[in-house]
Amino acid sequence: MRTVGISTKEGRTKEKKVDKMLLDMIKGANDIKNVDPSDYQELAQEIRDFLIEKISRSGGHLGSNLGAVELTMALHLFLDLPQDKLIWDVGHQSYTHKLLTGRREGFEKLRKQGGLSGFPKRKESECDCFDTGHSSTSISAGLGLVKARDIQGGSNTIVSVIGDGSLTGGMAYEALNNAAKLETNFIIVLNDNNMSISENVGGMSKYLNNIRTANAYLDIKEGVYNTLKEIPIGERVVEGIRKAKSSFKHLVVPGMFFEDMGITYLGPVDGHNIPAMLKVLQEAKRTRNAVLVHVITQKGKGFGPAERHPARFHGAEPFDIETGLPTKPRSTANYTDIFSTVMTKLGARDEKVVAITAAMPDGTGLKRFRNMYPDRFFDVGIAEEHAVTFAAGLAAGGLKPVVAVYSSFLQRAYDQILHDVCIQNLPVVFAIDRAGLVGSDGETHQGIFDLSYLSSIPNMHIMAPKNKWELSDMMKFAISFDGPVAIRYPRGEAYGGLKEYRSPIELGKAELLYAEGEICLMAVGSMVKTAEEVKALLNREGYKCSVINARFVKPVDLRAVKWACENHRLVVSMEENVASGGYGEKIRAAIDALHTEAGFLQITIPDEYVEHGNVEQLKQEIGIDAGTIAERIKKEMES
Amino acid sequence: MRTVGISTKEGRTKEKKVDKMLLDMIKGANDIKNVDPSDYQELAQEIRDFLIEKISRSGGHLGSNLGAVELTMALHLFLDLPQDKLIWDVGHQSYTHKLLTGRREGFEKLRKQGGLSGFPKRKESECDCFDTGHSSTSISAGLGLVKARDIQGGSNTIVSVIGDGSLTGGMAYEALNNAAKLETNFIIVLNDNNMSISENVGGMSKYLNNIRTANAYLDIKEGVYNTLKEIPIGERVVEGIRKAKSSFKHLVVPGMFFEDMGITYLGPVDGHNIPAMLKVLQEAKRTRNAVLVHVITQKGKGFGPAERHPARFHGAEPFDIETGLPTKPRSTANYTDIFSTVMTKLGARDEKVVAITAAMPDGTGLKRFRNMYPDRFFDVGIAEEHAVTFAAGLAAGGLKPVVAVYSSFLQRAYDQILHDVCIQNLPVVFAIDRAGLVGSDGETHQGIFDLSYLSSIPNMHIMAPKNKWELSDMMKFAISFDGPVAIRYPRGEAYGGLKEYRSPIELGKAELLYAEGEICLMAVGSMVKTAEEVKALLNREGYKCSVINARFVKPVDLRAVKWACENHRLVVSMEENVASGGYGEKIRAAIDALHTEAGFLQITIPDEYVEHGNVEQLKQEIGIDAGTIAERIKKEMES
Repeated sequence: MRTVGISTKEGRTKEKKVDKMLLDMIKGANDIKNVDPSDYQELAQEIRDFLIEKISRSGGHLGSNLGAVELTMALHLFLDLPQDKLIWDVGHQSYTHKLLTGRREGFEKLRKQGGLSGFPKRKESECDCFDTGHSSTSISAGLGLVKARDIQGGSNTIVSVIGDGSLTGGMAYEALNNAAKLETNFIIVLNDNNMSISENVGGMSKYLNNIRTANAYLDIKEGVYNTLKEIPIGERVVEGIRKAKSSFKHLVVPGMFFEDMGITYLGPVDGHNIPAMLKVLQEAKRTRNAVLVHVITQKGKGFGPAERHPARFHGAEPFDIETGLPTKPRSTANYTDIFSTVMTKLGARDEKVVAITAAMPDGTGLKRFRNMYPDRFFDVGIAEEHAVTFAAGLAAGGLKPVVAVYSSFLQRAYDQILHDVCIQNLPVVFAIDRAGLVGSDGETHQGIFDLSYLSSIPNMHIMAPKNKWELSDMMKFAISFDGPVAIRYPRGEAYGGLKEYRSPIELGKAELLYAEGEICLMAVGSMVKTAEEVKALLNREGYKCSVINARFVKPVDLRAVKWACENHRLVVSMEENVASGGYGEKIRAAIDALHTEAGFLQITIPDEYVEHGNVEQLKQEIGIDAGTIAERIKKEMES
Repeated sequence: MRTVGISTKEGRTKEKKVDKMLLDMIKGANDIKNVDPSDYQELAQEIRDFLIEKISRSGGHLGSNLGAVELTMALHLFLDLPQDKLIWDVGHQSYTHKLLTGRREGFEKLRKQGGLSGFPKRKESECDCFDTGHSSTSISAGLGLVKARDIQGGSNTIVSVIGDGSLTGGMAYEALNNAAKLETNFIIVLNDNNMSISENVGGMSKYLNNIRTANAYLDIKEGVYNTLKEIPIGERVVEGIRKAKSSFKHLVVPGMFFEDMGITYLGPVDGHNIPAMLKVLQEAKRTRNAVLVHVITQKGKGFGPAERHPARFHGAEPFDIETGLPTKPRSTANYTDIFSTVMTKLGARDEKVVAITAAMPDGTGLKRFRNMYPDRFFDVGIAEEHAVTFAAGLAAGGLKPVVAVYSSFLQRAYDQILHDVCIQNLPVVFAIDRAGLVGSDGETHQGIFDLSYLSSIPNMHIMAPKNKWELSDMMKFAISFDGPVAIRYPRGEAYGGLKEYRSPIELGKAELLYAEGEICLMAVGSMVKTAEEVKALLNREGYKCSVINARFVKPVDLRAVKWACENHRLVVSMEENVASGGYGEKIRAAIDALHTEAGFLQITIPDEYVEHGNVEQLKQEIGIDAGTIAERIKKEMES
C-alpha cells in the first residue's frame, strides 16, 4: 500500500491510497499491452502525476507532455517497438514515450549531466530511432526511414508525430510535398493543440481550426464511411470517394488541403480518447500511401495552471505543484528582460522600429513590444527562414526590423542572412538570445556556432555585451546603424557587474577594462565576467592581468590587439563558441600580422557537441571555467 | 529600314524587313504604355528575337525568360514603376523586365565583368526593388515590402512573381502561411510552367496540374463571376461566395488549397495572353488581402529547341540559333561528368547507395544514376532542407545516401547538416558542385562559404579533389566511411593533370606532390592546379617550392603542417573560400601550436561578395590567380 498524489484541475494534489501502481507493470517497450483497457484512464492519470511531480522538481517541457499522454499510449499500443519506428517532431513531448520504454528511473536525473535527455536520443534507447530538437524535421526523417524500409524490403510501420506548430515550418511542407508521391504506407500523426509555444499563427492554423470546429463534416464523413465499410465492397467505395472529383469530396471529407496534395486525411479524432485513436490508426495502417491522422489534444491537459498558461508551462522552471508558481522566483533580470525593456523604449522613440519572432514572443521577450505596438510586431510561426527574408523586405521598404531569435534556431536561416540581408547590406538587427551554452536542453539547443556562421558572411557586424547595460547600449547602436548587425547574449541572469564601465559603443572598438600588463585577456560577451574571475585568480598568484571587453567580434579591433601584443607577454582570447571561424581565430590572425613576440592562447568550446547539464558544470567539463582557464594560462606563462 | 531575325518554332530564324522596331520606343520604365495594344504581339516577338540573339552569344537563362515575355509585359502595363514594386523569385527570368526598364544596351555585357547581372540588382536600377538569386524568397520579401508600405501609409502596388518550381521550397509556404493573415492588398503571381529546372515534383505540382486541366471549373467560375459582376450588388455576392463554406466554394472555385489558407485565388489565366492577364491583375488589385494570380506559361516559348529541351536551355551556354546546339561543344569532361560516372559505378557495386537532388538531376549529373536506378534516386524539388534531413533518415534506416547539391544552395541546409546529420554522426555524403567561384551567375551563386560553414560543424569531414581521378577516389572513400563527409569541387572542366599522383585516400592525410624546400604551398582542391602554376613562376625566379595537396580540409593533416614548417621558410595556404573558418585558419592554428620559425601566408577569397564575371578575371581581381600569389610570396620571402 502506498500513497500517490493526484493532481487536479486546480493544480493541487489529492492523495489516494493504492495497492499497486499500474506504472509498475511497465518495465520496457510493449509492456503497456499487458494493461487492461479498462485501466487506460487510470494509467494516464498515473503518468500525468508522475510527470507533474518530476518536472515540478527538475523543470522541463510540461504542457506538451501532458497533452500527449493518451496519444503516446495509443501509439505504443498500436506499434511494435523497436521494430516499428516512431519519430517525435521537436521531441520535447517524448517523456511518456520514455516512460513507456523503461526509462522511468532516468527521470531522477532528467536533463541533468549524465542523465536522461529531454529529447529523443538514439544513444539512450533503441526505441528512439531519430534524434530531434529543432522543429519540423520529423516528416523528412520519417520519409527517409520509409524509403530505407522499402528499398531493403522491410514491412515495419513508421510514424512521425508532428505538432500543428511545427507544421508552420517550411521544411515540413517540403516533406509533405514529397510524401504525397508515396505509394507505400507512412503515417503522419498531426498532434493539433492549436498552439506553437505561444498561440499558433497563419493560414494553416486557421484552416485546421475550421476542420476542428466543422463537426457537421465529421459526422457526415464518419457516417458515410462506417456505413460503407459494413457492406462487402465498401472499402473500394471509400477509396472511390477519395479519388473522386474535389468538388464532391469536399462535401464529405475534411482535410482536403492534404487530400489535394495526395495525402490521405483521417480525422479529426479526440487525442485523449485511446480507443478512438486506435481505431483510426488501424485504418491508417491499411492505406498504401502517406496518411495524415489529425489528432486534437489539449496542451497542459490535466494540470490547471498549465492549461491556463500554456506558454509559461511550455518549458517550465521547477514549480510548486500546489500553486503552479516557480519554486525559486527570479530576483534578478535576465538578458531577455533587458532586451524586452530596451525594445519598448526603441519602439517608442522610433516608429520605424518593428519586431519579428518565429513563434516565441514569450521566450524572446517581445511580448511587451507586441502589447504596446501590435501593428509593428510580427509572429511568423516556426519559420526562421521566412522571418529573416521578411525582415530583409521590411528593411528594403525603409523600416528598422529587429529579429529576436535563439542562437541555435537562427542556424535555420544562414542562407537568408547571407543571401537576402547581407548581399544587399540591409539594416536588419539580429537579437540572438541563448547564445553560448544553454544547459538542460542539450546538444540541439547549444548556441555555440553563431559567431562562426555569422563571421563567414560579408557585411555582417557581430557584437556581444559584457553586462546588462551594454546590451541596451548595443541595441541602441544597432538600431542607428545602416547595415546588418547581430548581438548575441546568453541564457539566464544578466550580469550586473562592471556598471562603472559604460563608454559609448563605437563601430569595431573594444573596451579596455583593466590595464595591468603581463597577461591580456580578450573576452567576448559572457566571458568578460569569467575574465574578471580569471584575473582575480591570477592576481592572487602574483600575475598582472589586463582585461579587454571585445564588444565586436566582427570587425575585430586591430588596435586593441596591437596594444595587447605590445604590452603583454601573453594574449588570451575567450569566447563561448567553437574555434573554427570564431573570435579567437581572428585574434590569432591579427597577432600573426603584427610579427610580435607575444604568445597567444585561444579559449573556445571544443569541436564537439555538448550534451545537456548544468551550465557551470559543463563549462568545467569542457575547460572554459575560470579555474581551468587560469591553470592553462599559468602553464603557458611558465613554459 | 533594317533586317531583323525572327525565330521560328524549329529554332531557325527568318528574316524580316521592318521600318522601325517597337523596342526602339522603349527607353525606360513605363514606355511600354505608349505601345499600341494591337502591337503587343509584335513587341513580344521582338523581345524574343532580342533575347535569343543575345543569349545565344552570351549564354544565360533562356527558357524561363522566353516563357515570361508576355507576363512581364502585362505586369509593366499594369504597374507604375518604380513606385510600385515587382519582385522576381530566383530572378533569372527578369531579362524582359530589364529590357523594359531601359537596360537594352546592357545586354552587350550580360553576365560579364562590370556588365548587366543575370539577376535583379538594386544597384543596377531603381526598378529592381529586391535582389534575388536563390529560390522561394519572393513572397517573404514582398510581404516585408507590403508591411513597410502599410506602416508608413503608402498605397503602391506590390507584386511577387514566383514559379511553380519555387513553390516546392518550404520558405515560400512559410510566407504564404503568413500572407494569409493580410487584410491589405498583396499580389502573388504564380508563373506556372509545370517545371523547376527539370520536371517539377510532388503533391503541389500534382495539385496545380489538376487545376490547369480543370477547364470545367474555370468555365463555371468565370461564368458565375462575370454574370454577377454585371449586376449592381454583384461584387458583394462574389465576395460572399469567397467567404462561403468550403463545400460550396469547391463547386465553383478552383485553387481551394490557397483559399483554404485565406488567400484569394484567381485563375488560371493564359500567360501568353496579355489582355486576359491585365483583366485578372486589375481584379487582383481590388482585393483587400493576399491574392494569388495563377498564370500558365510555357518555358522556352517561341524557340523550338528550348521548348523541347527545357532543362538544357535553362541555363544555356552560347548556342547556334539555327540548330540550338552549343557553339563550342565541350571536348573535355567537367567535374559533374566525373561525379555522374562514379555514381553509376557506386550504384552498381552497392545497392545501399541512394542519390538525392533538390530539383537538379541535370545540373548535378545525377540523371544517369536516375535512369539506371530509378528506385534509388530522389528528386525532392527545390527543397534543400528536406533533402538533407531526408538523407539523414535514409542513413538512419541503413542506406548510404549521397546528396548532390551546389555549394551556394547547400547554405539553405546548414541547420539540417548540423542538427540532423552530424549530431547523430550519420553516414551522409555531400557531393558539393559549383564550389569556389562560379563566374557569370555572380554574388548569389558563388560557392565560397562552404569550407567555413561546414568546418564549424562537429563530426563533419571535408575533402576537395585536385583532379578528376581524385574526385572518383574520394567518392569511393566517402561511401565506405561511417560518418558525414563533404566533397567540394568546382564548376567547369575537370583538371586532367597530375594523373601520376594517385595514392590511396586516407582519413585526414594530405598528399605531397613536390618536395623541394624553401616555400611550401598547401593547396585545397582547385587551388592545386594554381599551386603548380605558382611553383613554375617561383622556380623560374630561382625559388624552390614544394606543393602539398591538402585533400582534407577537416580534419587538417597536422603531420603535413609539421613537415612543411620543418623544411621550409614559408608555408602558404591556398583555397577558393573566404578566410573566416576556412582552411588557412586551421593551418595557421596548427603552425602556431608548433612554435616554429616558418612564416605563413594565407591565400583566400576576401571578406566580400564577388560579382559576376569570367572566373579567371575574377581571380585576378581578388588576387587569387597564380601571378598575384607568386608576387605576394616573393614579397614575403624578400621581407
